[in-house]
Amino acid sequence: VIQRLAIVGLGLMGGSLGLAARERANVQRVVGCDPDEGARAAALTRGCVDEAGDDLAAAVADADVVALCAPVSELPVVLAELAGLAPQATVTDIGSTKTGVVAAVPAGLRARFIGGHPICGMETRGAQNARAELFDGATWYLTPLADTEPARLRDLHRLVAALGATPVAIDAGVHDRLLAVTSHLPHALANLLVVQAGEARIDGHDPLTAIGGSFRDMTRVAGANPRIWVDIFLDNREALASVLREHQRALGEVLTALEAGDAGYLARWIGQASGHHRRALAAQFDQRPEELYRVQVHVPDRPGVFAGITQALGAARINIEDFELHHFTPERGGTIELLVAGSEEAQRAVELLDAQGYGALAAPVLADDA
Amino acid sequence: VIQRLAIVGLGLMGGSLGLAARERANVQRVVGCDPDEGARAAALTRGCVDEAGDDLAAAVADADVVALCAPVSELPVVLAELAGLAPQATVTDIGSTKTGVVAAVPAGLRARFIGGHPICGMETRGAQNARAELFDGATWYLTPLADTEPARLRDLHRLVAALGATPVAIDAGVHDRLLAVTSHLPHALANLLVVQAGEARIDGHDPLTAIGGSFRDMTRVAGANPRIWVDIFLDNREALASVLREHQRALGEVLTALEAGDAGYLARWIGQASGHHRRALAAQFDQRPEELYRVQVHVPDRPGVFAGITQALGAARINIEDFELHHFTPERGGTIELLVAGSEEAQRAVELLDAQGYGALAAPVLADDA
Repeated sequence: VIQRLAIVGLGLMGGSLGLAARERANVQRVVGCDPDEGARAAALTRGCVDEAGDDLAAAVADADVVALCAPVSELPVVLAELAGLAPQATVTDIGSTKTGVVAAVPAGLRARFIGGHPICGMETRGAQNARAELFDGATWYLTPLADTEPARLRDLHRLVAALGATPVAIDAGVHDRLLAVTSHLPHALANLLVVQAGEARIDGHDPLTAIGGSFRDMTRVAGANPRIWVDIFLDNREALASVLREHQRALGEVLTALEAGDAGYLARWIGQASGHHRRALAAQFDQRPEELYRVQVHVPDRPGVFAGITQALGAARINIEDFELHHFTPERGGTIELLVAGSEEAQRAVELLDAQGYGALAAPVLADDA
Repeated sequence: VIQRLAIVGLGLMGGSLGLAARERANVQRVVGCDPDEGARAAALTRGCVDEAGDDLAAAVADADVVALCAPVSELPVVLAELAGLAPQATVTDIGSTKTGVVAAVPAGLRARFIGGHPICGMETRGAQNARAELFDGATWYLTPLADTEPARLRDLHRLVAALGATPVAIDAGVHDRLLAVTSHLPHALANLLVVQAGEARIDGHDPLTAIGGSFRDMTRVAGANPRIWVDIFLDNREALASVLREHQRALGEVLTALEAGDAGYLARWIGQASGHHRRALAAQFDQRPEELYRVQVHVPDRPGVFAGITQALGAARINIEDFELHHFTPERGGTIELLVAGSEEAQRAVELLDAQGYGALAAPVLADDA
């Protein structure tokens, strides 16, 4: 059991870590440290920490675990100070890239350091928005060094699991190459796409006023959080550049096929995308993708319309795997898309909704992949 | 008023067009034509058409309007036959690209031809899934030729509006260049992204098992409908190739900045993406993006949980602009994200949900763009 946890940096992540540690992991005492008085006050008000101060030495002195939740760019300075200040503590961080942090760990700390990176949404900011559930079900990468003491990795692994996350130990460099593909590349493509469309004028038409669902889905993260993302891109520049070059190479192949009118290449390429898309769906829903059905319902755009629909499905014990509303106009309403598992459940959902006077339709998610 | 509409090709689009024409546009008689007996039966059963046959000449003979809803690759042959078969009719189509179709219109038909392209989701297939609401609120591009008779454009414009769509007249070439940016480029990037991640193995790790929300959003359309998309890519190859080359150029700039460690460039680039993302949001929701709030609620994963939430909001007359469920696990539940307009509405939503025992949080959608 961890007696004393010190959290350096009381933002959304640090605050949520404190809340989860207190509520779920039985940590006896959580001490926060932040130079910003407002952040300390918010963390105290929300119950993220038992005490908070601005003195690093005092905060970490007796800590069993020190979690660095400050901006990545400040970590090298903090790490250099820590070795002497917290002589017993296991030290970890939560930065989005790991190679740089690991390289900045001073020799005296290497046996006690384990990098960390919880993968969770950060749509809000600040300790005032902290919540203990933030890490629920999230993958939390742990990147021990070659000389990290195994018992420390074991204890941190247990703490992370107690917070509600799934700890996954991984080499720091592998982590960064993996995130370059799964996170940094999509962010870069979203930015490129929205800038290209936003800057274009096609015979007077502004493409951004003519976008559909696929464009919206692809640019949801575009332009998010410049302060954080410049650091992420730069910290991981080597892995990201390599991934971007691979994208350029593959794009070049598609361009060649396109210009040659090579229908066979394009069909194989889309087929390959379809196969990988299925695998990704299966991993996401713990369901065989063949079992997933999309139920579409056209509804008027008025308050309370969801209640009748979700109640009917709830009463019939039909579980909704995913739920999206495509908003059209107040005059015409919109379309609800429900994702349900199982053809029998999908059929029952359609019958229930039809009985409520909605024209519902069900189709296998993979129907279009044939 | 259009007396007689002939629909050539009774798939989802042709069937839905028939339904909407009968139910909404007061078309007197809708005649369908399809070589496939199953498609004809489905269209008749669903009430998409008054009669259906496999003889093109018989179907179009007395038509005021002929709508070609067959696969784009079959259009040149059908168009060549039509001039003599339907001497009075206005002829249109619904293909996703327009330059090729327009070029295939024979001289005898040019005064009567207007290309068309309704932008609407096609998650299902076949006349059995037809629905009159398919075109609700959708942009429906109309591409008249230089020699199209104005009265015919006016009448088709009215028909499209009566179906529930928003007609937008546009030059065929401009249409194709616009769609290359707003639709074909996102599809190509989604395919490239999922193939790159799906083919990669990083020290044994399969990236597709480690993806998060941004990756999922960006690859939702990946691998969709190879039969349709090979045709779209090839029909629009010139405009698409130009757009892909522009993407390569911009990507090259980002790569150069990345390798040079140019934080200023990256910050300006993300800022530019942020600005365009705001504009796109504003166009999507008819709301100033500053007015949009994201309300997050953590909920258990059990049937009926939506009902309590949506009822509470419905009773309080809080309108939900958008609704997404991020599914985690049956054990841990998931997070619902509601999009509501107005800070006061968002605050009321949080209070109502808190009162129901859910820990809800609200934040401006643009908070992270600062």
